[in-house]
Amino acid sequence: MGDVERWHELGQQLRVDSIRAAAVTNSGHPTSSMSAADLMAVLMTKYLHYDFDAPENPNNDHLIFSKGHASPLVYSMYKAAGAISEEELLTFRQFGSRLEGHPVPVLPWVDVATGSLGQGLPISVGVALAGKKLDRLPFRVWCLNGDSEMAEGSMWEAFDHAAFYELDNLVAVLDINRLGQRGPTMHEWDLNSYANRARAFGWKAIEIDGHDYGEIDRAYAEAIETHGQPTAIVARTIKGKGVKEVENKEGWHGKALDHPDEAIEELGGIRNEVIQVPKPEGDGEPHVFETGDLELPRYDEGDEVATRKAYGDALAALGSANGKVVAVDGEVSNSTFAEIFKEAHPDRYFEMYIAEQQMAAAAVGMQVRGWHPFASTFACFLSRAYDFVRMAAISRARFSLCGSHAGVSIGEDGPSQMALEDLAELRAVHSSTVLYPSDGNQTAKLVAQMAELDGISYIRTTRAATPVIYGPDEEFPVGGARVIRSSADDDVTIVGAGITLHEALKAADALAEDGVSARVIDLYSVKPVDAETLQAAAEATGGRIVTVEDHWPEGGLGEAVLSAFADADERPQVLKLAVGGMPGSGKPAELLAAASIDAEHIAEAVRRLVSAAAVT
Amino acid sequence: MGDVERWHELGQQLRVDSIRAAAVTNSGHPTSSMSAADLMAVLMTKYLHYDFDAPENPNNDHLIFSKGHASPLVYSMYKAAGAISEEELLTFRQFGSRLEGHPVPVLPWVDVATGSLGQGLPISVGVALAGKKLDRLPFRVWCLNGDSEMAEGSMWEAFDHAAFYELDNLVAVLDINRLGQRGPTMHEWDLNSYANRARAFGWKAIEIDGHDYGEIDRAYAEAIETHGQPTAIVARTIKGKGVKEVENKEGWHGKALDHPDEAIEELGGIRNEVIQVPKPEGDGEPHVFETGDLELPRYDEGDEVATRKAYGDALAALGSANGKVVAVDGEVSNSTFAEIFKEAHPDRYFEMYIAEQQMAAAAVGMQVRGWHPFASTFACFLSRAYDFVRMAAISRARFSLCGSHAGVSIGEDGPSQMALEDLAELRAVHSSTVLYPSDGNQTAKLVAQMAELDGISYIRTTRAATPVIYGPDEEFPVGGARVIRSSADDDVTIVGAGITLHEALKAADALAEDGVSARVIDLYSVKPVDAETLQAAAEATGGRIVTVEDHWPEGGLGEAVLSAFADADERPQVLKLAVGGMPGSGKPAELLAAASIDAEHIAEAVRRLVSAAAVT
Repeated sequence: MGDVERWHELGQQLRVDSIRAAAVTNSGHPTSSMSAADLMAVLMTKYLHYDFDAPENPNNDHLIFSKGHASPLVYSMYKAAGAISEEELLTFRQFGSRLEGHPVPVLPWVDVATGSLGQGLPISVGVALAGKKLDRLPFRVWCLNGDSEMAEGSMWEAFDHAAFYELDNLVAVLDINRLGQRGPTMHEWDLNSYANRARAFGWKAIEIDGHDYGEIDRAYAEAIETHGQPTAIVARTIKGKGVKEVENKEGWHGKALDHPDEAIEELGGIRNEVIQVPKPEGDGEPHVFETGDLELPRYDEGDEVATRKAYGDALAALGSANGKVVAVDGEVSNSTFAEIFKEAHPDRYFEMYIAEQQMAAAAVGMQVRGWHPFASTFACFLSRAYDFVRMAAISRARFSLCGSHAGVSIGEDGPSQMALEDLAELRAVHSSTVLYPSDGNQTAKLVAQMAELDGISYIRTTRAATPVIYGPDEEFPVGGARVIRSSADDDVTIVGAGITLHEALKAADALAEDGVSARVIDLYSVKPVDAETLQAAAEATGGRIVTVEDHWPEGGLGEAVLSAFADADERPQVLKLAVGGMPGSGKPAELLAAASIDAEHIAEAVRRLVSAAAVT
Repeated sequence: MGDVERWHELGQQLRVDSIRAAAVTNSGHPTSSMSAADLMAVLMTKYLHYDFDAPENPNNDHLIFSKGHASPLVYSMYKAAGAISEEELLTFRQFGSRLEGHPVPVLPWVDVATGSLGQGLPISVGVALAGKKLDRLPFRVWCLNGDSEMAEGSMWEAFDHAAFYELDNLVAVLDINRLGQRGPTMHEWDLNSYANRARAFGWKAIEIDGHDYGEIDRAYAEAIETHGQPTAIVARTIKGKGVKEVENKEGWHGKALDHPDEAIEELGGIRNEVIQVPKPEGDGEPHVFETGDLELPRYDEGDEVATRKAYGDALAALGSANGKVVAVDGEVSNSTFAEIFKEAHPDRYFEMYIAEQQMAAAAVGMQVRGWHPFASTFACFLSRAYDFVRMAAISRARFSLCGSHAGVSIGEDGPSQMALEDLAELRAVHSSTVLYPSDGNQTAKLVAQMAELDGISYIRTTRAATPVIYGPDEEFPVGGARVIRSSADDDVTIVGAGITLHEALKAADALAEDGVSARVIDLYSVKPVDAETLQAAAEATGGRIVTVEDHWPEGGLGEAVLSAFADADERPQVLKLAVGGMPGSGKPAELLAAASIDAEHIAEAVRRLVSAAAVT
């Protein structure tokens, strides 16, 4: 049997299996799978180098379906590779099956979750960057993209960065099947429009008929011979190819076929061929960066240091001790202080320019290869990458985020640069950790722990220099809280973190002069939250708590505290201070006062709470 | 004085004023202003048609600074136009000043807040779309863009849509000054790279020296003569142009000059010329769409209808009664049911393809012109546009969002398509309204109210058809909650919304058989929340509440309820049921059960709470 015949047989098998899989629960995307079946048939028999028995082999290529809804095709390929059984294929989309509606890394051969379009390619850029600059291994990254998702700006962030970093180990296959979910795509079969854009962004682009095996074969051959730039294979395909009832017809996106048996017959019936996917050619080991002991920065009590500066110092120190730590930043490294890491470890720093989606995606891609990225920008701009963070949780990804310039306390720049929703945003991410230090030494200790945490960990840093209040040898376990001031006869507990902790301490001083004794808690770990310490404080201070946060009232520190008591037997009265009105520009102190979260307003709130209690 | 000399004088004045403004608080971005001063000098004297005395004139052009950090230039232009005084200019960035660090529409001549890069151009696309297709007036939209922000994918979403919609009323001026915040941009002065991309995306592109007045003049002249496509003027400029100490030097982003007086002298000293900005040429009135009476859809109790379907029905009906209502959707209108509006009002529907950032930006741009857009996609994909929604709040924008396919109840598609963070996300937006209906008639009543709300209103809809439980004439005021079942001797209150309200009702039935009487509250308005109804219920049911939501535990319905009681005198015990673990695929009922938010688990939780209370 010649190559073309073999490819045809495999292409038909992949189509048949896609239809069979979708028939199981009468849901899924068979027609989106059928358009790309020939492209994948040629790829997996000749160009993809992958050991399905050893998915952890560092020399494996990576195949990422940016069009994650073509999951029937993914699973059909796994069956054709002998990685899953026919029986398992037919569990598609059933409760408890590994074969979910969109691919997730519950399967050992899936690198990342896709299904939110426009993410697979930017993540592939991250994997390819890791391959070239970190692992320094010759594996390739193959990414299958839909045409609808080319409308996502994140795709063009990926095109921009892949060319800039000369990622010739990256091949993007564009499955131009003309039809989106509800009708034709913007550019339909105008292959040129895609190819011209790719070229304008610095890529090699090859236009082909995605059902002509010879053209597909030559395109891959050309792609792997291309040096210094990534390649886009722009393939004209037919959605639903092979089954007349659905071929190139609207109204068949995300639907199982009405007559699967007839369709399977039209495609030549069920086949169960298992093909040999080429094994990885190399046997190299990933590059290892030299490291020494961990020597975190040490700040003297009484000095002033911004937690963002401490973040940079600590990250650089961590990088010296842990060769897996890398950093990416969204063109603000002189503000986030990621630049300190960059100077110390230039080989492990990657500039992502002002492309926060690509920044997050690069982090996700690098952690696929076992690196631990720290991605930083202004905390408010992490909102640009929220969908990527959401999806990263589904990818069971393990990396860290740093958001600087939190809250109104940044001052003159005004609200566009103030993160006032980031705690809500990052708390509402599955399995996330949310940290908010108030002091340089504490920041250093938290940064060091972040590299050891599973899931997505987030640290919120402050623009302004604040007093160092902790010694460099104190410990701040994630999930803890620090009672920073207390006495046996405290009247109230004030809970703050970051900038507001310092205001809380000043408030406590002022209150002490009035004879009001305030316990002060530093809630540096907003998620997980230390319910035990909070409950003990509430009990000891008459069930009175004032929370204060440089954040909107919703979803942040105040609600984290409330949730800690939600169904507890005793629930304290919690007076939540947060930013209520829209801030403008001004000096940090003016803005903290205007938001009623400075020392004076905290003290006032405490007095109200305590005197109301005295009356009742 | 000839044109060139006048432009030179004005350019220098704008530079001097930018430097003076930044000197006030020793902060701001004078060098980023100086690079674009000549471009803006020519624009405002000859091409921009704008009546500063009548900013509401519908025939005014629109000038949007996508590079919002060049605010000193914006304000210097306002001074040169006679709109603000020298005295006011020198309040820049001071507390209480209208001249904030980045422009905000507190000023009548500012359309939208900018400062998060990559947003001004997509918003300009929205304004230009409104001009061409809704207002049908010949005004132009001029958008000044920085080179750093060309790295944002959202810019390419804008390029894509502007060409697709043939927006020849849009001119993008690209200020290619080579330097970003922390160093050179990716493409520095490679003008060709920008121009080629613009052309590949279907734009006319003109490359010029941005300090050559003749070239600038000719480029604008060519732009306004261009038909059928938007124009990008790609201008090579020098950051800090005119002051040797800072010209084309790194390290001067976002900093006031060290020696402002010398710099002003170098630029020829202070000038206070006021120039005549051309007035709008047209005197047309915005197009008015014909309307009739509001006839909301009516569903029969006992029937089943998905709230997403009711959203589409209601939006179409609303469109028939309110000519200001328009709809945009992210290529999923057959799932969100925005397609019903599209069919009824094709002239007021705009397909945004899979470009959620552009979709949100289009909504922001259209509301600038007084239209009321409803933007819809799967609720999880609104996370893609979160930064745009955050900024829209700073823009004091007024529009509506609809997110369909909320929660695990969508079933087989799996977690990538499930919104489990959207309530947290949208609650943490300044002045937002968050609605979550459970019934078709309720949905219709809420959609009708959304068009009357200020700020950003959000409605979360459900994929599955659910029973109609309310009559078509019942009222559901925003900010209210509905006690749907109650008796004098209720033991507990269950609070649900959307899909979980139906589970709560089933749970209440089951509990009634066991002799446990449960009050059930439909919390269809998650923000603002009806604290009074919740407090009355808590009081009447022994201080016991079970909340149940198809959402992560953080920031959603449960925490909204907790916040309603935070500092109340009596705080109930609140047992929060929410999605704890990462869901997979399965049938809706299987996934609701696995997440412990179906009727059975609600009933179990209630029994636990009630029996614990009985023991104590």
